[in-house]
Amino acid sequence: MPEYKAPLRDISFLIDEVFDYPASYAALGASDATPDMVAAILEEGAKFCEQVLSPINRSGDEEECQWRDGVVTTPTGFKEAFAQYVEGGWNGLAADPTYGGQGLPHSLGLIISEMVASANQSWAMYPGLTHGAMSAIHAHGSEEQKQTYLTRLTEGRWTGTMCLTEPHCGTDLGIIKTRAVPQADGSYAISGTKIFISAGEHDMSENIIHLVLAKLPDAPAGTKGISLFIVPKFHPTADGVGERNAVSCGSIEHKMGIKASATCVMNFDGATGYLIGEANKGLNCMFTMMNHARLGTGMQGLCLGEASYQGAVRYANDRLQMRALTGPKAPDKAADPIIVHPDVRRMLLTMKAFNEGNRALAYFTAQQLDIAHRSDSAEQREEAENLLAFLTPICKAFMTESGLEATNLGMQVFGGHGYIREWGMEQLVRDCRIAPIYEGTNGIQALDLLGRKVLGSQGKLLRGFTKLIHKFCQAQAEHPRLAAQVAELARLNQQWGELTQKLGMAAMKNPDEVGAAALDYLMYSGYITLAYFWLRMAVVADASRQAGEGDSAYYQTKLATCDFYFKRLLPRTEAHRLAAEAGSDCLMQLPAEHFSL
Amino acid sequence: MPEYKAPLRDISFLIDEVFDYPASYAALGASDATPDMVAAILEEGAKFCEQVLSPINRSGDEEECQWRDGVVTTPTGFKEAFAQYVEGGWNGLAADPTYGGQGLPHSLGLIISEMVASANQSWAMYPGLTHGAMSAIHAHGSEEQKQTYLTRLTEGRWTGTMCLTEPHCGTDLGIIKTRAVPQADGSYAISGTKIFISAGEHDMSENIIHLVLAKLPDAPAGTKGISLFIVPKFHPTADGVGERNAVSCGSIEHKMGIKASATCVMNFDGATGYLIGEANKGLNCMFTMMNHARLGTGMQGLCLGEASYQGAVRYANDRLQMRALTGPKAPDKAADPIIVHPDVRRMLLTMKAFNEGNRALAYFTAQQLDIAHRSDSAEQREEAENLLAFLTPICKAFMTESGLEATNLGMQVFGGHGYIREWGMEQLVRDCRIAPIYEGTNGIQALDLLGRKVLGSQGKLLRGFTKLIHKFCQAQAEHPRLAAQVAELARLNQQWGELTQKLGMAAMKNPDEVGAAALDYLMYSGYITLAYFWLRMAVVADASRQAGEGDSAYYQTKLATCDFYFKRLLPRTEAHRLAAEAGSDCLMQLPAEHFSL
Repeated sequence: MPEYKAPLRDISFLIDEVFDYPASYAALGASDATPDMVAAILEEGAKFCEQVLSPINRSGDEEECQWRDGVVTTPTGFKEAFAQYVEGGWNGLAADPTYGGQGLPHSLGLIISEMVASANQSWAMYPGLTHGAMSAIHAHGSEEQKQTYLTRLTEGRWTGTMCLTEPHCGTDLGIIKTRAVPQADGSYAISGTKIFISAGEHDMSENIIHLVLAKLPDAPAGTKGISLFIVPKFHPTADGVGERNAVSCGSIEHKMGIKASATCVMNFDGATGYLIGEANKGLNCMFTMMNHARLGTGMQGLCLGEASYQGAVRYANDRLQMRALTGPKAPDKAADPIIVHPDVRRMLLTMKAFNEGNRALAYFTAQQLDIAHRSDSAEQREEAENLLAFLTPICKAFMTESGLEATNLGMQVFGGHGYIREWGMEQLVRDCRIAPIYEGTNGIQALDLLGRKVLGSQGKLLRGFTKLIHKFCQAQAEHPRLAAQVAELARLNQQWGELTQKLGMAAMKNPDEVGAAALDYLMYSGYITLAYFWLRMAVVADASRQAGEGDSAYYQTKLATCDFYFKRLLPRTEAHRLAAEAGSDCLMQLPAEHFSL
Repeated sequence: MPEYKAPLRDISFLIDEVFDYPASYAALGASDATPDMVAAILEEGAKFCEQVLSPINRSGDEEECQWRDGVVTTPTGFKEAFAQYVEGGWNGLAADPTYGGQGLPHSLGLIISEMVASANQSWAMYPGLTHGAMSAIHAHGSEEQKQTYLTRLTEGRWTGTMCLTEPHCGTDLGIIKTRAVPQADGSYAISGTKIFISAGEHDMSENIIHLVLAKLPDAPAGTKGISLFIVPKFHPTADGVGERNAVSCGSIEHKMGIKASATCVMNFDGATGYLIGEANKGLNCMFTMMNHARLGTGMQGLCLGEASYQGAVRYANDRLQMRALTGPKAPDKAADPIIVHPDVRRMLLTMKAFNEGNRALAYFTAQQLDIAHRSDSAEQREEAENLLAFLTPICKAFMTESGLEATNLGMQVFGGHGYIREWGMEQLVRDCRIAPIYEGTNGIQALDLLGRKVLGSQGKLLRGFTKLIHKFCQAQAEHPRLAAQVAELARLNQQWGELTQKLGMAAMKNPDEVGAAALDYLMYSGYITLAYFWLRMAVVADASRQAGEGDSAYYQTKLATCDFYFKRLLPRTEAHRLAAEAGSDCLMQLPAEHFSL
């Protein structure tokens, strides 16, 4: 298994040198998050991930979760690691101090989550879902619900889930069948079957708090008739848990990957539930958490891409095979290390460029999350919320597509050994493969970006971001080293607007044009977005290198990777643009039954 | 598991309507392969694959092969299926009648192998490797070796392997360590460890014949000192097998996919072996079979892409989720079938366009294989061999890359269900993932194409193919319906030559330029190659549709898929061209140690 080392240098480059988190934290009144404190937290988090989570990643994949008579056993070490995580205070890091959290910024929580998932994606699902449930209760729960549930979730004594999907519906939540019948005591009897419930049942916590979408008897049809309920596995008591509720795990799925994450079928047989938020507004409650959750899923692409890169670089330096095309580089050995071969470097640099570009995109987006949550200025909050709304589907879909490409390349670098489970590289591909699917498929993200966010705002959300790029390009137009790339970015930034207008015009005549262009438009947008972040990194790296600051090799590598990105990956925009412009006719002209001819 | 249906209509479209196999078979004197006979063989083959192999595909993945004390047990039904295959005469279909084969054309054998691998890729490995061993013995064995081994391999009583890879070398066979020491009786004592040996040990046949690369004691260093040996598991006797040879299976690998294919570590402990072909010419012996084997590996992309497509289309018609963007299409149901959504169609059509384009490429290439083997005309044989040499790396790499994309899309169409093993869609991704790696990684194929074949022939092999395209475009320039696509193909065909010249010039100054451009050059070449075959199909389909022949819906679908290919997939050439032209500097400028910063 590739041994994970948290990329602390790269993290500090982004938060200290590129995005100036310290200034941002100070402005947002996050006074606890001093640079020293942040550095200490990251170092401790790195240790935990490297020493506790990484070593049980491959064994977790081999052992998988086991289900027997409704009880789920997680692989060896998972339970103990969770206890250590809770003990270390990691679970409540970014949670509200009123309910026992440490109140540190969400962006810092995201970086810790990054290290956790890079080390062990399956394990990361348990705290990940808990954080989702915490957000929902924090945003929409009553004070009593917060005291009862949020405090114990924050403590890590209990864990949480999100129960949305049913056998016949995932994307289309308007047609869920789970029913909630009001009871005399103000509670509800919840009945129905939920599937694909991550962390739905396991042995890591005393209690599991399910957040369940269901319909009231008189609910309007469709998405406007969905309500959200809290359904605890055990009924809470003053100092712990009491009776078992009528919710049980019917089975767990056997999956391609994240095998140590329990994916449960949950049966609700008149289970007692409590309405959270307003009746029939359940989907809105979900939407408020969605930016955070989708950014988190996007991170999976980065995390597994990073883990794969670390393994691939090590292997490319160790494995001896063939001589360099330009003559032997290690003449004393039987062959040269494969990192001398241009095509191996192409694979490594593609991974590196995606990972580091995605990390910059994610940290910028997380910064907007902090601002949206904490700024005193309504204007700043709105601006941040708009950027968040725009960037979230890009984070989710682009980062998972490129992350999947990265993990596949990492495996390819290993040749035949990459296909053997022992080396751990193929697990990263399998663990990553779910990310383009869940939390809204990438096709849905693309519709969200082009249809809802961009065209739905008459281009306003797009302009909010392209304006940043435009200003950056203006400011750097004369950059002594990077002017050509700045000009290329400026050109694409303008083209982005033009393409959007074209698609908007077409969509007015035919709504299918949005669906036809959406995925390619999203990927196109992703490549330009990463180009912007790569140049922001390059400008900083170039300045520090010129100033002779710090580690010049690090900055040089950053510049070279930016160069690679512009030359070898950014040209993909052209293929996506042409495909996005191709129109819907070539997709829609065939009757459905002709697809099987 | 997607239930496999052999695409007999598409097969007959290609062999009867596009490539005119009957005329080709007649000209090559393959008088047994009459159209009626071919149709009957394909129908019987389809039945076997659909009814015998497809049903044990998923169970084979779940059971995997089991190793115990050197004995490998294949999953339930594998042994029986092999007996039926042998009984049905499938194993010797395209083999030399002198040694018990039926002497049918290789192209027909390829189509049967396609159906076999589409139904069950793991199972296909056993006869696949046997056919490889048969080719090697047929091409290089002595008459005695042919009588002893080839007859029984053809009969299917024995199976074969190819033992190349060792723990420290796969691509770089020049550094193998397995030794062959001459014995007094003219045999050799073979000692060493081979890994990744498909079908190295199993319970399906009476004997296993290993073809082993090893070095003689006085062999020159590198690839010019490799010899090929026959090492039987049991020593042959007049009517069967005798004593066990000193070769054993030390373990089997646990892999990402093709889990029912035994991938063995083979230990040769002074095993008795027999030189085949000339001493120190072992790699040449391998090369003569490589076109066939690499085409076969390319087929894996088509086969699993086809299986995945069949599953995805069925699911897209069944699964109800959301309403069409243009309003309800199935108002009587809770939601519309997802095939109404443009992005779902984009995925399906991408799969369909790759599969059918790849099938055309493969069948054309197989036709060249027939001509190269059978034509009386030396000129025809040379032309066919040149086309084969040129197209083989494209078949191997482009078909496996696009096939992997297809299987991933098929899984994506299923949403969360695609990730669940039960549905069988993720198995197809896992089974396909090895194809870009083995039989020469796609990076090696790319070097073979650009370095060895194209630049190594001073462009001659490229011109041999682009000339065909040029002639086709000239003939069809005024096509009433397809002229625009013909013009686009002609433009790209010319650009292909120009790009090649540019790369050739750069390579003269710096050999790294070949490695830097190779993979993108190969993919670029693949997209243009498929465009040519798509247009050839479209011209035929259009003519038949105009003439009111046969099934007009089938021809219309072909034309629509061609349209889709040109609009949505062919633009990818642009991204690959720009990347191929980007030069080696952005890959080579970083010292190896900077990759880990």
